[in-house]
Amino acid sequence: MRSLADYERRAKDHFAPDAWDHVQSGADAGLTLGHNRAQFDALRFMPRMLRDLTGGTTALDLLGHRHAAPILLAPVAYHRLAHPAGEVASIRAATALDTTMVVSTLASITLEEIADCARGAAHELARDLSPLWFQLYFQPDRAHSLELVRRAEAAGYQVLMVTVDAAIKRSEFALPAGVSAANLAAFPRTIQRAQAAGGQIVFGTPLADAAPTWDDIAWLRGQTQLPIVIKGLLSPEDAREAALQGVDGIVVSNHGGRVLDGLITPMAALPAMVAALEGKVPLLLDGGVRRGTDVLKALALGASAVLVGRPQLHALAVAGMPGVAHMLHMLRAEFELAMAQAGCRELSQIGAGLLA
Amino acid sequence: MRSLADYERRAKDHFAPDAWDHVQSGADAGLTLGHNRAQFDALRFMPRMLRDLTGGTTALDLLGHRHAAPILLAPVAYHRLAHPAGEVASIRAATALDTTMVVSTLASITLEEIADCARGAAHELARDLSPLWFQLYFQPDRAHSLELVRRAEAAGYQVLMVTVDAAIKRSEFALPAGVSAANLAAFPRTIQRAQAAGGQIVFGTPLADAAPTWDDIAWLRGQTQLPIVIKGLLSPEDAREAALQGVDGIVVSNHGGRVLDGLITPMAALPAMVAALEGKVPLLLDGGVRRGTDVLKALALGASAVLVGRPQLHALAVAGMPGVAHMLHMLRAEFELAMAQAGCRELSQIGAGLLA
Amino acid sequence: MRSLADYERRAKDHFAPDAWDHVQSGADAGLTLGHNRAQFDALRFMPRMLRDLTGGTTALDLLGHRHAAPILLAPVAYHRLAHPAGEVASIRAATALDTTMVVSTLASITLEEIADCARGAAHELARDLSPLWFQLYFQPDRAHSLELVRRAEAAGYQVLMVTVDAAIKRSEFALPAGVSAANLAAFPRTIQRAQAAGGQIVFGTPLADAAPTWDDIAWLRGQTQLPIVIKGLLSPEDAREAALQGVDGIVVSNHGGRVLDGLITPMAALPAMVAALEGKVPLLLDGGVRRGTDVLKALALGASAVLVGRPQLHALAVAGMPGVAHMLHMLRAEFELAMAQAGCRELSQIGAGLLA
Amino acid sequence: MRSLADYERRAKDHFAPDAWDHVQSGADAGLTLGHNRAQFDALRFMPRMLRDLTGGTTALDLLGHRHAAPILLAPVAYHRLAHPAGEVASIRAATALDTTMVVSTLASITLEEIADCARGAAHELARDLSPLWFQLYFQPDRAHSLELVRRAEAAGYQVLMVTVDAAIKRSEFALPAGVSAANLAAFPRTIQRAQAAGGQIVFGTPLADAAPTWDDIAWLRGQTQLPIVIKGLLSPEDAREAALQGVDGIVVSNHGGRVLDGLITPMAALPAMVAALEGKVPLLLDGGVRRGTDVLKALALGASAVLVGRPQLHALAVAGMPGVAHMLHMLRAEFELAMAQAGCRELSQIGAGLLA
Ligand SMILES: Cc1cc2nc3c(=O)[nH]c(=O)nc-3n(C[C@H](O)[C@H](O)[C@H](O)COP(=O)(O)O)c2cc1C
Ligand SMILES: Cc1cc2nc3c(=O)[nH]c(=O)nc-3n(C[C@H](O)[C@H](O)[C@H](O)COP(=O)(O)O)c2cc1C
Ligand SMILES: Cc1cc2nc3c(=O)[nH]c(=O)nc-3n(C[C@H](O)[C@H](O)[C@H](O)COP(=O)(O)O)c2cc1C
Ligand SMILES: Cc1cc2nc3c(=O)[nH]c(=O)nc-3n(C[C@H](O)[C@H](O)[C@H](O)COP(=O)(O)O)c2cc1C
Repeated sequence: MRSLADYERRAKDHFAPDAWDHVQSGADAGLTLGHNRAQFDALRFMPRMLRDLTGGTTALDLLGHRHAAPILLAPVAYHRLAHPAGEVASIRAATALDTTMVVSTLASITLEEIADCARGAAHELARDLSPLWFQLYFQPDRAHSLELVRRAEAAGYQVLMVTVDAAIKRSEFALPAGVSAANLAAFPRTIQRAQAAGGQIVFGTPLADAAPTWDDIAWLRGQTQLPIVIKGLLSPEDAREAALQGVDGIVVSNHGGRVLDGLITPMAALPAMVAALEGKVPLLLDGGVRRGTDVLKALALGASAVLVGRPQLHALAVAGMPGVAHMLHMLRAEFELAMAQAGCRELSQIGAGLLA
Repeated sequence: MRSLADYERRAKDHFAPDAWDHVQSGADAGLTLGHNRAQFDALRFMPRMLRDLTGGTTALDLLGHRHAAPILLAPVAYHRLAHPAGEVASIRAATALDTTMVVSTLASITLEEIADCARGAAHELARDLSPLWFQLYFQPDRAHSLELVRRAEAAGYQVLMVTVDAAIKRSEFALPAGVSAANLAAFPRTIQRAQAAGGQIVFGTPLADAAPTWDDIAWLRGQTQLPIVIKGLLSPEDAREAALQGVDGIVVSNHGGRVLDGLITPMAALPAMVAALEGKVPLLLDGGVRRGTDVLKALALGASAVLVGRPQLHALAVAGMPGVAHMLHMLRAEFELAMAQAGCRELSQIGAGLLA
Repeated sequence: MRSLADYERRAKDHFAPDAWDHVQSGADAGLTLGHNRAQFDALRFMPRMLRDLTGGTTALDLLGHRHAAPILLAPVAYHRLAHPAGEVASIRAATALDTTMVVSTLASITLEEIADCARGAAHELARDLSPLWFQLYFQPDRAHSLELVRRAEAAGYQVLMVTVDAAIKRSEFALPAGVSAANLAAFPRTIQRAQAAGGQIVFGTPLADAAPTWDDIAWLRGQTQLPIVIKGLLSPEDAREAALQGVDGIVVSNHGGRVLDGLITPMAALPAMVAALEGKVPLLLDGGVRRGTDVLKALALGASAVLVGRPQLHALAVAGMPGVAHMLHMLRAEFELAMAQAGCRELSQIGAGLLA
Repeated sequence: MRSLADYERRAKDHFAPDAWDHVQSGADAGLTLGHNRAQFDALRFMPRMLRDLTGGTTALDLLGHRHAAPILLAPVAYHRLAHPAGEVASIRAATALDTTMVVSTLASITLEEIADCARGAAHELARDLSPLWFQLYFQPDRAHSLELVRRAEAAGYQVLMVTVDAAIKRSEFALPAGVSAANLAAFPRTIQRAQAAGGQIVFGTPLADAAPTWDDIAWLRGQTQLPIVIKGLLSPEDAREAALQGVDGIVVSNHGGRVLDGLITPMAALPAMVAALEGKVPLLLDGGVRRGTDVLKALALGASAVLVGRPQLHALAVAGMPGVAHMLHMLRAEFELAMAQAGCRELSQIGAGLLA
């Protein structure tokens, strides 16, 4: 286990085949999935040598909180697909490594239990609690969305990440017994696969009609004081609109290549978004981050931080809580090493000049 | 069977080897055949998020008729190579899915029978008949070409597609017993492989001398009121000439990579043709369309609609009429999904901005 | 046997392994060898449709003589490596197909015998004799070079092709018994692998010191009235110098990738040479020509004609004289077909506009 | 054994598996390692023909000394991993081929013994001694660094190469018994893997804090009269700084892809460095040089000379001293051949015009 890829290789044997396929797969032909990795490999560093590295640090202030490193765990549904302990194991590991894990609406354990667990772990390990983030999927019924927000506020979550790129998504994966969307247990299963009029297949169905719009963002902005981070934008126009709507952060993401195959990669989209936002709103990025050098490249192009998705489940499946901690340790070690080798002592030194 | 590629994979076992080779192959080294697929994969979407999708539709007005979606079945010779029911099965499926199938001059069932069958199916299914299109190959004798046109008019065809890129084409494939060009049964087999003078091989033969020219287009224009769509242009000069000649539509096509290996791909050719035509003449496109995202990309570059060729035969061979219907259903479902995921509610929202 | 590649595939079994390696191989890692093929595949045609093709022809006037097609057989040493009949078989085939075969200095049969044979074949077949070309390698002793020129003149050769890119070339291939440089039998084997001074390996040896220079070209120009074609230039400066020296033609060539690995390909070099020469001197091209479409691409970029090297030996080895004739027939048929399909009736219509 | 690649292929069997892995591997995914080779293959020569080659030479004046060819042996640690005779065998071979071998700080034999050996070999072979170069790794304690410099001066080394790109480098390779850093035997093993504060992994450790800076270069410049060559710069800013600091030469290098994966390649970095330095400081280059044509390409882009790393160990492992001599002979022969074939008689003729 010398890199995240080693966990990935071994993880396959720890999943049921259809769950593994569900976790790993990309939409359609998986082009975007592949491009997400390739986007990093295509960039080259122009390093600086012989610079003073004493007092170096990877620390980051983001939305009013300090993070030990510019690396977060992306919201990923149903951790119990990977390990019976599910999100509880993952958040303990994240806490041990001073890392924020964004808790998904579709967590297989309730958001309250996960938050409690994080606090417990911080206490046990006698360290500060990393900021708690909750990822919201809009529910067909606004009352339900609001209920989730209120529960997250009550449970001590400090940031709300609203994922907007996966409202309309095909999936043929059926959850195994014992794994379910714990946060949604009380809501009726609202979206039926109703037949649309005139031979249409998507348009005209409740799925399309209930998909969130900018109106929903405006509404949500009016409902909560928590910082709102929109996850899943790729176009500079959308970035500008988000800024206008008072959004506090954006995750540049194509949902790990799981939704629309052929999407631009986050790294390709990032520069225009940076330009469009003029620094008003911090940009995070995910999709294919597997190496410390990937993190460095994303920051060099203007991201404030990155998130990692699938590797959480790989490490969790292979080795439970310690696996996730080890995975995070390796990624952070690689990132520190890459910074040092490239001549950067702090995040502010990482800029476009670092890329050839 | 989750995508058109699944039908293609299974179809091989349903064809005689030489027929399969005939259907699948490209000219020479198959470079163009490969490029046709690659042309789509090379493009990336720049999606818009959070846009209102209610009331979405894929409907299209083309040459005075309404189509449920911007997808047609390309003219493909001899459907009976794939299935004994031949074009009759295909057009039933097309009708069930509100789709136009362009009937080839080289259909293995007469154009009259196919048209009747479409009308019967529309009646049975109690839905509107999709527009009937007939594809014309010029015959060495103009009287024969005219006869085909008159028969098509009489049979209720509403559009004439004239294919101009395959007059001179090598083929070593021999039709099996029971499959023939039903529409041409009454014509003498005119083109003999006569030896040309001076050691020449193509030039000077009846094949080269009888190849259609712009004169033939002008002549045809004078003979019929039906809209004429030329299939097989790739250069903007030819597009302009077609517009001058009063042509009503153009299919940007390299004949599925079956004629001259090394041809530019339709997607590469499209932008210059769009520019040359200034919207005067609608452009259709075919070659390698296999996914809903391919359709979306073609429309984003300026096509009004696309046609699919080989997948008809794949689905027909594997599962007959229901296969073709299912294939069309999947393609349309994928296209609707892609539109929705990219933030487009109607075709008019699909433009160059959708590509990164 | 449907393409030149089929002969290549089968030829291997007809050669001794080291001879096959000698014929097929490129210098060092074979990069240039591979690029020579790739250079053609990278270009795309922009065809014109519906143009009149009656009276089409591939005929070409070159250096005062008519050629049936813009395709010649490149000078290739030792045809008897491929077949006991050697150059005699090849030139018969070339004559049957109205094609010029450039006879190498290193032919395994004397230039006189080959010329006689060509005349005999033309007589037998009752057709015009294709122009006779002789390829000259400068000999270390100018008297020997001159003797070769005089013999070629006497034997009726009409063009002198002087190859200048292979004077310094590594080869570990030893000719088998019975195969030798028939034209050089009377000359002493002059170049010894003498040790150079100061630890040098190439410089300072007779090999480097005797390599031909522009002085030798000037000298040769003064010695003969025959048109001189220099084979092996790639830079526009050299092309200009050749024009100044009164050279009548140039073969843009990297010697089939056999000399310096990493050389620019002829097709990449061609446009600048065309520009440098402003039409004063015709340009031929070789290296990797295997398809009719390759010929069309070379002409579209400005070559007057192309030469084919290795395919001669492949066809000769597999099927002797009829093999070479068949190979030439296929190539010419493909070229005519490609011209016709691209909308060109004569060579003058083939220009830069044909490439996308 | 016809090329350096042949030694590489056979060398594997002569190493312990972990040593082989240590020698061959690149950092992380080995991207940079691969790019180092690919950087050469991507360039194409534009050769000049028919130029006079008499009196050709590869000789070079560098930092006041004459070198037979622009090829040096890069500093490589622990030659005894490859062969019991270690650096003694290598420097004998280098001397026999009039080549400078840069002796590493981490040599497995003392720098004094190696220098003596070189002198002995030059005497034996009755040829001039190639310039002696010593490669310095800064030691955590400046006194130790100085001691190494003084020893190198005393032993007759004429150039000091200071490697600055590998101070912070992961390695899990453990030296086998009997192989050690002979030059450092007297120094305490100073860098402990101490735990850094605040969960940090690299920053805050002695490793990061002791990494050399420009201050160390300035200090060294004040301590010795020997020419100083900095090894491991890639950015033009660093090149300019080096010139300001009075450095005498720079090796453009990414340490053979062994440190930070994703680094720009030396050949990609070279042009901007050439431009930044305006000829004030000679530039050497290493990483992936395996062919004579690679050397020619590096010089064409502006390098004064190149260094080869791994091939030393390959040849040493396979065939000891004669292996290294043979390897060098082949590389120089290939380089001379390439120069001659490209039309260059001396190094000054090798310039940007040689590349297409
Ligand atoms: C199995 C799986 C489940 C996911 N579930 C969610 C989710 O519930 N909410 C969400 O916003 N994103 C979800 N994502 C997307 C991730 O947040 C993230 O965008 C993506 O995984 C990043 O790409 P990576 O896996 O290559 O790191 C999920 C991704 C995977 C692989
Ligand atoms: C087996 C086969 C038969 C075809 N027959 C015709 C035909 O009769 N008339 C015509 O205009 N095009 C014909 N085409 C070309 C198609 O109309 C269409 O241009 C092509 O198949 C599109 O590429 P695709 O197969 O990749 O979708 C044929 C194509 C195939 C594969
Ligand atoms: C086996 C062999 C022998 C050759 N002998 C000669 C020769 O004697 N004189 C010459 O000018 N070129 C010679 N050439 C080079 C060819 O004329 C020609 O430039 C090259 O083969 C073209 O590339 P192709 O083989 O890819 O068509 C030889 C090439 C081969 C493969
Ligand atoms: C096994 C090994 C040990 C090395 N040791 C050193 C060293 O001690 N000092 C140094 O400056 N560079 C060292 N290098 C880097 C080389 O000097 C050189 O930069 C690199 O090997 C060039 O790439 P190449 O191996 O592709 O030719 C080492 C490289 C290898 C492969």
